[in-house]
Amino acid sequence: MEFAIDGKYLKLLEIVEKELSGDSSHTVDHIQRVWQTAMQIAAEEKDVDLDVLKPAVLLHDIAKIKEDLDKSGKTDHALLGAEIAGEILKQRQYPRETIIKVQHCIQTHRFRSEREPVSIEAKILFDADKIDVLGAIGVARSFMIAGEHHERLYSFTPLKEYIADNLVDGKPSGRIKDILKHAPNLEFETKDIKIPAKLYTAKGRTMAKEKIKYMAEFFARLRSEIVGDK
Amino acid sequence: MEFAIDGKYLKLLEIVEKELSGDSSHTVDHIQRVWQTAMQIAAEEKDVDLDVLKPAVLLHDIAKIKEDLDKSGKTDHALLGAEIAGEILKQRQYPRETIIKVQHCIQTHRFRSEREPVSIEAKILFDADKIDVLGAIGVARSFMIAGEHHERLYSFTPLKEYIADNLVDGKPSGRIKDILKHAPNLEFETKDIKIPAKLYTAKGRTMAKEKIKYMAEFFARLRSEIVGDK
Repeated sequence: MEFAIDGKYLKLLEIVEKELSGDSSHTVDHIQRVWQTAMQIAAEEKDVDLDVLKPAVLLHDIAKIKEDLDKSGKTDHALLGAEIAGEILKQRQYPRETIIKVQHCIQTHRFRSEREPVSIEAKILFDADKIDVLGAIGVARSFMIAGEHHERLYSFTPLKEYIADNLVDGKPSGRIKDILKHAPNLEFETKDIKIPAKLYTAKGRTMAKEKIKYMAEFFARLRSEIVGDK
Repeated sequence: MEFAIDGKYLKLLEIVEKELSGDSSHTVDHIQRVWQTAMQIAAEEKDVDLDVLKPAVLLHDIAKIKEDLDKSGKTDHALLGAEIAGEILKQRQYPRETIIKVQHCIQTHRFRSEREPVSIEAKILFDADKIDVLGAIGVARSFMIAGEHHERLYSFTPLKEYIADNLVDGKPSGRIKDILKHAPNLEFETKDIKIPAKLYTAKGRTMAKEKIKYMAEFFARLRSEIVGDK
C-alpha cells in the first residue's frame, strides 16, 4: 500500500530536503519512509488528525543537521525542530492550534527523551520513526552508518564479555580499542531488539516485530557466511 | 564448515592486518572471509597446492591501501601486491618456485584486469575474492561503502533512463547530480548479478548463484518496505 505525499505538502518536503542534504541517514528519503509507515499506522487508528500528523512527519527532523553540527551536544533536534517547525508553519498560515499539536509531536519523537508522546499523532510519529531503523531498511541504514564511522562489518564478541576477559590491572588492555569497534550486529542485539516493546501503537508493534525477525535472520545468515557455513 | 588459519600463517596475517588497517572494506576481516571461501572451494578441486593458495589469500590485498592513496590512479594493487608479497615471502625463506606461483595468483585476482588466472590456485583466489561481495556479506559491504561515500540507501531510477529523461540541450540538467547518486541496489543490478558467470570454479559458481539469489530477495524486500508494502 503506497501513500504518496499530498501535493499541498510538497513545499514542506522541499524545505526539509534542503535542510537535510548532507546527512546520509536522515535524508529526505528517511522522511518519505516515515511518511509511508505513519500513514499505514494511521489507517489502523481512530480519530487521527492528518492535518497534524502530516506536517509533523515532514518536519520532525528539520533540526537534525543543526544538532549534529553542535559539538557541545547541547542542541536537541526535537526541541529546536519544534521551534523551527512552528516558524515555518506560522509563515505558511497554519492555524495556531494545529501548530501547537505539531510541535508536541516533534518535541516527543526522540527515543532518549523525558517527554512522552501523549496525542495519537505524536505516538504514530514516534513509532513510525523508530520502525525506520528496523527491517531491511534498518540493515541498510546500520551498515551505512558503520561505513561512515569505519566500524567493523561483524563482531563476534559481545562487548561486555570481551572487556571482562581483557582487563589488565582492571583496565582494558592493548589492541582492545580496535577490536571493540562497534558493529551493526551488536547494535541490533543490544538496542534494536528492544524497540517493539517501546512502541505506542498496536500496528507499530506488529510491524516492528516482523522487521526484527527479518533482521535476526539477516544477522544469523551473515554470521554463517563469515564462518563458512554458507 | 570452518577453516581456521593455520598457526604457521599467523605472522603473514599480522603483516597484512597492519597494512590494511584504515580501509573499511578491505580489512583483515575480508582476508579471513576469503580464506574461508577459498578453503571451501579448494576442498572440491583436485591438485590444489595449499602452500601456494594460503599465502596468496593472505597477501592478495597487501597493496590495496597504497592503490587507494595514489590519486594518480596508476598503482595497480594486484601488480604492486605481487611484488610486495614476493619480498615478504623471500624474507621468510619461502621457496622461489612457491613465490612465483603465489605472485601469479595475486597478479591475476583483479576483476578488471587483462591478466587471466591460469593455475587452479589463482582461479580459487579470484573466485573467493569475488564471492566476498555477494550474499549477506555483500549486502553489508555495499551499504558500508555507500555510507562512506554518502550514497543513497535506495535508487528507484535506473541511471540510463533517468539521464535520458533529463537532458537539457543534450546534457544532464539541474539536480541530476544529487539524484544520480549511486545506491547499492544499482550496483547489484548492474554489476554483482553478472559475477557467477565470470567465475572459474564449479563450486565458486554454485556459491555465487545462491548468494545472488539471497541478495535479490534482500533488495526486493528493501524496496517493498520503502514503498510501504511491508
